[in-house]
Amino acid sequence: MKKQIMGKGLEGWSLRHLLIVSVALNVCLVLKLGYYERESNLTTEQIFHGFCTEEKLHKQLSQTSSSSSSMAAVVAEKAFNFFNPSTSSSSAIANDVVNDDGRVINLDHGDPTMYEKYWQQAGDKTTVMISGWQSMSYFSDVKNLCWFLEPEFAKEVIRLHNIVGNAVTENRHMVVGTGSTQLFQAALYALSSPGGTEPISVVSSTPYYSFYRQVVEYMKSGLYKWVGDVSNFDKDEPYIELITSPNNPDGVMRQSVVNRSGGIWALVKDEEVAKRMTKFIELSSIGVSKDSQIRAAKILQAVSDSCEHAGDSSNFFEISYHQIEHRWKQLRKAVKESGIFTFAWLKCEEDIEDCENFLRSHKILTRSGKHFGMSLKYVRISMLDRDSNYDLFIKRLSEMSSSRSEE
Amino acid sequence: MKKQIMGKGLEGWSLRHLLIVSVALNVCLVLKLGYYERESNLTTEQIFHGFCTEEKLHKQLSQTSSSSSSMAAVVAEKAFNFFNPSTSSSSAIANDVVNDDGRVINLDHGDPTMYEKYWQQAGDKTTVMISGWQSMSYFSDVKNLCWFLEPEFAKEVIRLHNIVGNAVTENRHMVVGTGSTQLFQAALYALSSPGGTEPISVVSSTPYYSFYRQVVEYMKSGLYKWVGDVSNFDKDEPYIELITSPNNPDGVMRQSVVNRSGGIWALVKDEEVAKRMTKFIELSSIGVSKDSQIRAAKILQAVSDSCEHAGDSSNFFEISYHQIEHRWKQLRKAVKESGIFTFAWLKCEEDIEDCENFLRSHKILTRSGKHFGMSLKYVRISMLDRDSNYDLFIKRLSEMSSSRSEE
Repeated sequence: MKKQIMGKGLEGWSLRHLLIVSVALNVCLVLKLGYYERESNLTTEQIFHGFCTEEKLHKQLSQTSSSSSSMAAVVAEKAFNFFNPSTSSSSAIANDVVNDDGRVINLDHGDPTMYEKYWQQAGDKTTVMISGWQSMSYFSDVKNLCWFLEPEFAKEVIRLHNIVGNAVTENRHMVVGTGSTQLFQAALYALSSPGGTEPISVVSSTPYYSFYRQVVEYMKSGLYKWVGDVSNFDKDEPYIELITSPNNPDGVMRQSVVNRSGGIWALVKDEEVAKRMTKFIELSSIGVSKDSQIRAAKILQAVSDSCEHAGDSSNFFEISYHQIEHRWKQLRKAVKESGIFTFAWLKCEEDIEDCENFLRSHKILTRSGKHFGMSLKYVRISMLDRDSNYDLFIKRLSEMSSSRSEE
Repeated sequence: MKKQIMGKGLEGWSLRHLLIVSVALNVCLVLKLGYYERESNLTTEQIFHGFCTEEKLHKQLSQTSSSSSSMAAVVAEKAFNFFNPSTSSSSAIANDVVNDDGRVINLDHGDPTMYEKYWQQAGDKTTVMISGWQSMSYFSDVKNLCWFLEPEFAKEVIRLHNIVGNAVTENRHMVVGTGSTQLFQAALYALSSPGGTEPISVVSSTPYYSFYRQVVEYMKSGLYKWVGDVSNFDKDEPYIELITSPNNPDGVMRQSVVNRSGGIWALVKDEEVAKRMTKFIELSSIGVSKDSQIRAAKILQAVSDSCEHAGDSSNFFEISYHQIEHRWKQLRKAVKESGIFTFAWLKCEEDIEDCENFLRSHKILTRSGKHFGMSLKYVRISMLDRDSNYDLFIKRLSEMSSSRSEE
């Protein structure tokens, strides 16, 4: 018996339950990146983003501060000076004119601030107004199995899936969660056996998304247990295999959400699984923010509208595609110039054993391969920071070989 | 070593950690009810609300429907016809003119729709506008230990506490959660020992809030375990005692939130506890909806404004106080007329062994005492439904004795 939580690439699997956990706002984007991938022969040579690990923040704190009252404060002061209007307004600038003010660049977590500019330019289209008396009830739609799912949000999710054509939406139950993190836990809960004497094993091929292990382990749950790399597992017993496709970190980008407000959901075939996922979210947080669902519905609507007008210069996916394309070109050039990295995601060559540590000495925060079940030679880098930080990151990367020989 | 999660009534306890989990929007209301309690000599004779248990919904489904595709659908069609404008617009009507259309009245969960009217009349004061490009980052305030706490929300929480004077806010860390359900789990996580070999025991005196047991048990966590009634616990080992004060269900009302959007929070003294609670919420749902925090800030602002103008006819607490006072008068009268109930919360007398079952036969859904660790003779009733349903509930209650003798 095999249970899988996955996105794509189902062929050849014998499934008991099929959960298609999909990320709405990235659907077209991912398709676009798929095309780009073939065009540029990048295949797995890509770099990705996600949420920061606390260990990293703690480490960052202990190494950069002795007086701050909280670890977050350090990150705030050092890494987040892009909130300063004087730095946040810059766009794609040639590397040689980027002024390095010594700031820390945090590419550890996939904070999708890159998209702010697009939505600012989109103006009032996605502005929502919510009155004080709205959503007073716990219930969004009492006729729905997932009773906290806002009907307007559900409608826009189905519409976007239909436009993109990437998922069957008929005869599926929709379960909304607070991001993929909560949905992932709901799926684990739904697929495990509450009456079982032994916890079910959770396996995933390396490199796996760094958050998975933490999330599976933090509650010391008797429902499931982390095993990790699927090659360590040869027992003839039920297990849950996590398949993230495109994979994070070494496949095509899987990002939590363009605008993270409630924009991640799951389509579920099996009614009992959908019920148990809904129950989990009820017990975890009695539903999902209605305000965020209302807002996400508005944003999805704008995304779908722009998808339906492919020639439109405001098309969200066209614009995002060109932005990411530009960033990849910059990155490839800089990696080539440095001579000390190869892709796959980003691997340090020569005698650099700890790539994350090495980049940190250049005030660039990334996520070490160890969190993904891999070697310290690797790091994952977020591609989704604002232009001013990304440009500075590229500049430093380009100059690294020479600066290193000076050390 | 004793660890407590509690609201008030700390005197005489030896505490290792003190967590004041307080409900912002109900602060003044609770004080008011406290006064009312003394005036009317009700003491513990009160009836309360909370969230519905799935067992109940399942039971409801199996007994009232054979064709519906989801359990929620039944509740929708039967219990939620107060969404019909023709029924929802009625106000406090004398019992004899309330028309009983046979609807199911669901007083199982504390859905605070009673407050819709007030906020509708308050007009645009609490309307929020959120642009598409806002809150794009995961971070609300990177200088704060709780990095997903919106500064505007934090400010209004402190302001209301200062106006009411019910909590020390200086030298406290604020942790925001998605309702008390998530915060309660964050507190359990923070107070348990991740390295411990045995789970810590969680105890609570009966009647305890019905959700506690489910929430403690659903993950089969190795961090903590449910023991239940404190009188069952005599071991000389660490434990966590849950103290809800005023107690739910048999003390003064503890309601989750007037407008549930992110309005519950915790003030924490110990920095390590605050950090672990923050970590839990990061792992559970990577923070809390920013949209809901922005909205809750606006609503708290309006509540504080109305608190500062005590003579104002729009004072939220004055109005709510009179509304609840009116409902209590109706309830006491109806209970007296029926002759088959006593308060404490609501106890069936005579030969009625299963009070919840008995009331269900009158299409009134309540929560059985068994969920609170008590006898089937008791039920908890939500006082927070819209007027039209509450009035009908009162009418049926008054007539119950006679209708029962006819059965």
